[in-house]
Amino acid sequence: MRIAIDAMGSDKAVQPEVAGAIAAAKLWPHLSLILVGDEARIQAEAAKEGGLPQNVSIRHSTQVITPDEEPVRAVRTKKDASMVVAGKMVKDGDADAFLTAGSTGALVVVGTLGVGRMKGIERPALGTVMPSAKDPFFFLDIGATIDPRPEWLVQFALMGDVYAKAILGRKNPKVALLNNGAEAEKGNALTKATYPLLQEAKGINFIGNVEGRDVPFGVADVVVAEGFSGNIFTKTMEGTAMALMKQIKGALMSSLVSKIGALLIKGGLKPLVKKFDYTEIGGALLLGLKGPVVKCHGSSDAKAITSGIRFLKQALEQNVVEQIRAAIEAQGPGPEGVAE
Amino acid sequence: MRIAIDAMGSDKAVQPEVAGAIAAAKLWPHLSLILVGDEARIQAEAAKEGGLPQNVSIRHSTQVITPDEEPVRAVRTKKDASMVVAGKMVKDGDADAFLTAGSTGALVVVGTLGVGRMKGIERPALGTVMPSAKDPFFFLDIGATIDPRPEWLVQFALMGDVYAKAILGRKNPKVALLNNGAEAEKGNALTKATYPLLQEAKGINFIGNVEGRDVPFGVADVVVAEGFSGNIFTKTMEGTAMALMKQIKGALMSSLVSKIGALLIKGGLKPLVKKFDYTEIGGALLLGLKGPVVKCHGSSDAKAITSGIRFLKQALEQNVVEQIRAAIEAQGPGPEGVAE
Repeated sequence: MRIAIDAMGSDKAVQPEVAGAIAAAKLWPHLSLILVGDEARIQAEAAKEGGLPQNVSIRHSTQVITPDEEPVRAVRTKKDASMVVAGKMVKDGDADAFLTAGSTGALVVVGTLGVGRMKGIERPALGTVMPSAKDPFFFLDIGATIDPRPEWLVQFALMGDVYAKAILGRKNPKVALLNNGAEAEKGNALTKATYPLLQEAKGINFIGNVEGRDVPFGVADVVVAEGFSGNIFTKTMEGTAMALMKQIKGALMSSLVSKIGALLIKGGLKPLVKKFDYTEIGGALLLGLKGPVVKCHGSSDAKAITSGIRFLKQALEQNVVEQIRAAIEAQGPGPEGVAE
Repeated sequence: MRIAIDAMGSDKAVQPEVAGAIAAAKLWPHLSLILVGDEARIQAEAAKEGGLPQNVSIRHSTQVITPDEEPVRAVRTKKDASMVVAGKMVKDGDADAFLTAGSTGALVVVGTLGVGRMKGIERPALGTVMPSAKDPFFFLDIGATIDPRPEWLVQFALMGDVYAKAILGRKNPKVALLNNGAEAEKGNALTKATYPLLQEAKGINFIGNVEGRDVPFGVADVVVAEGFSGNIFTKTMEGTAMALMKQIKGALMSSLVSKIGALLIKGGLKPLVKKFDYTEIGGALLLGLKGPVVKCHGSSDAKAITSGIRFLKQALEQNVVEQIRAAIEAQGPGPEGVAE
């Protein structure tokens, strides 16, 4: 299992990437990790960590894509950018998967044009593991594909099902469609057209529509949305949790009595704060490509990079690409097979 | 100021409507309130509250629209339903505004077909006051209009601006567009087309796109979205806050030490829990009609009905219908003026 790691993507690159890769290499010695980026800087950072383990190597590259660049243009002009090179390694069979903490927009372009879509997949989707009041769930698409066709959402559901099994260990994942009402006839033009297709889809346990109000309580294992409302959903969940936590901290510091109370409840609240901390989750997965791809937050630390590598390890061990291929094939020759 | 109140709409009708109207009539003696519904049941309930004050009257009606009915059909066939009659009173000039805690779907139909849209308004929008880590903000549309045109969203922004001034007392409301990224070029086809129109709109302080992550922190006074993602946004904010509060309560009860801590922080947390409690806010406003219309939650108690009546009182005092007319007219003869 060879995983390419864009060493230049995060806000504090190359420190988190190098330290995170070294930690992962020690945890899982059967992985082969390739750090892609400025060799001198990677070597200097590795020296601080006691040098590179045997299963970590470097692929030198000279350019970097920054978050403010227009994605398509940046990917097309910067052929030697670390993210572009890492993507090409997967395409050429020099790596099985890749990870970046760089720009999401650029990653979607690198994924689609560089790595390339799996046969039969119409559009990639960005999926992520989200916390809930019960168990975590897998959510997609959080913004890779805007204004999609209903058939693409069905493919997202099939891919989400595979990932919920591989990453979350669910046996028969409950798959739901994010909608503005629970009833079958509710929705906009897209969700109304998608609902019957999901009912007919083979091999998934489609439980129907779910509302934004119910998802945070953990009613489904996989929640499917198009990229725009998916982005609204995940960011609103994150923002609301953060705003509420901030307010609670303020309220706890408002008097001496509540400060003493805060000390007493600290132990009980800590795991909860951690659970709803978005940055703990370790990133998003770009699905539907020839190899698994992980996007970590720009603000990732070494621990977040290691978590991202664990995602890729699980995806490779579970052979998700083959499983998705089989799930798509099981649908038979449908309209999506001849659409393009 | 004559306000018609659908007495049959809430889950526990007629109790909340009758008790809420009586409380409002006593608080604001200059209001004239008309309870629409089964006269015998309203009289019986009023007797428990010490009888109807002089400024509360009854308009008898024999039918009720239930939440499970198909809205258009229900409104068309049940001519004597309490909600339909209340809407017709506004249309006929027998009331200046109306309130219901009945089905949202039916209300949108009653509003559009019964009360009728204001001249120049293309589609109605449902707006509501939402809590944030700073001040509350006005959000629309939460689900009245699905799959809209960009011009309709501009009208939503103009109406939201008027209501933020009237209901929230903001002087120069910051108006923002809910989007999947803050940059001007981000979005789906709809938000990309809407952005430049909002920049050109006259008389509003458009501050650009806002993300779901930032809105709960109170970055804008008015947030505009189309009904589908608006529904996802408001319900996700509500669901996340509720799920988190439930988890916190669980964590506080997990040990004796944290239980003691919980007692000490109770006073500090209470106003916060109240602030994020969606049911405290008192309902949604259906905007763009010939008179102000309030939709209270189906689960409303008497206090929530009284809050809804306060919304209508403020809207009438501020003459919102006239203000919206002026705001639309100030845009000049645009494409929206001749679209239909």
